[in-house]
Amino acid sequence: MDQKISQKVVERLTLYHSILIEYLEEGIEAISSPQIAARLKIDDSQVRKDFKLLNNAGKCRVGYLVKDLKESIENTLGFSAPKDAFIIGAGNVGLALAKYDNFTNYGLNVLALFDNDPIKVGMEFDNKQIFHISKLPNLAERLNVDIVILTVPRQQAQKVADFAVESGIKYIWNFSPVILRVPSGVNVWNENLIASFLQFAYKNIIGS
Amino acid sequence: MDQKISQKVVERLTLYHSILIEYLEEGIEAISSPQIAARLKIDDSQVRKDFKLLNNAGKCRVGYLVKDLKESIENTLGFSAPKDAFIIGAGNVGLALAKYDNFTNYGLNVLALFDNDPIKVGMEFDNKQIFHISKLPNLAERLNVDIVILTVPRQQAQKVADFAVESGIKYIWNFSPVILRVPSGVNVWNENLIASFLQFAYKNIIGS
Repeated sequence: MDQKISQKVVERLTLYHSILIEYLEEGIEAISSPQIAARLKIDDSQVRKDFKLLNNAGKCRVGYLVKDLKESIENTLGFSAPKDAFIIGAGNVGLALAKYDNFTNYGLNVLALFDNDPIKVGMEFDNKQIFHISKLPNLAERLNVDIVILTVPRQQAQKVADFAVESGIKYIWNFSPVILRVPSGVNVWNENLIASFLQFAYKNIIGS
Repeated sequence: MDQKISQKVVERLTLYHSILIEYLEEGIEAISSPQIAARLKIDDSQVRKDFKLLNNAGKCRVGYLVKDLKESIENTLGFSAPKDAFIIGAGNVGLALAKYDNFTNYGLNVLALFDNDPIKVGMEFDNKQIFHISKLPNLAERLNVDIVILTVPRQQAQKVADFAVESGIKYIWNFSPVILRVPSGVNVWNENLIASFLQFAYKNIIGS
């Protein structure tokens, strides 16, 4: 990923990507930047400026080739080599993320899930095996995985994070509403649903 | 909510809130701003500045009373009167959000879920009934609900959003990775998991 791409641009590129998937499904082969701008209610010049950051954006006589533009966004934003990850916690959030097909487009492969519920362990979900959490150190080492998506209940999040760190995990995408304590060298990214919801409420509902 | 509170402050206040819940559970009655600052690896002066925005922050001799501070954050960020909402889509994401207990602290009450799956319709989940989607117009009107959390599969999102708008819904918190077309007067807040993940990847993994 180009280090110069700002967070705002990253966000817009993912929105363009959603629209391109839709166009592909509808069989539309080429689109123009004003069409995309209109869908997002933003300025056409902004869209064109963003596309200039991409390599091989699929520019053609009538605009952009949908397939090429989509791939170009994926290449620009995604990992140059795909990265493997585990999901810890096979509850509703974990299962929802396990089948979230968009991750793969950006080079993140979820290999397996982990849980401590004997009923879930051994099951398969969306072609991914659910292992007992005790298998994490062994599998993380053998499969060379250092990224986990943490979706366990709040009360267990710290304990499980500690165990993941002991197992060699270096990157935790944390969906539990807990501020994790991790040693230096381990990176946590908190998914803060309440903050997100409050942005929504603040901008739309409370002000109205 | 005070219109002057910036998005960054909103985010930090929700992080403080997570820590305070934890302290309450551990039976800790009072805390100091340096303690909180250390947990978040931010500057103490920032924490104190943020707390100055709160009413009745529970300041005491040794710092802040955990219970009062927590309530003060909820009052500052939350709705003055609780708002009711529906969840449309009783899949993994919908069910996860239905039992996400933190919403209530900020004044959002999820009253019920809607789905079109005959197996799910009629079931209860976390004390919330799952209704058939055809009941939405009637229940939205009778219960005076104009907020929905949309968690249906991507392919159905637009159709369901249209139906919600026809049913009088004015605010859509959209978890489907689709750019919805809505008439003016309807507000959509997109929950963009890919953008969030890419922030994480960009800041931590790709740069390393």
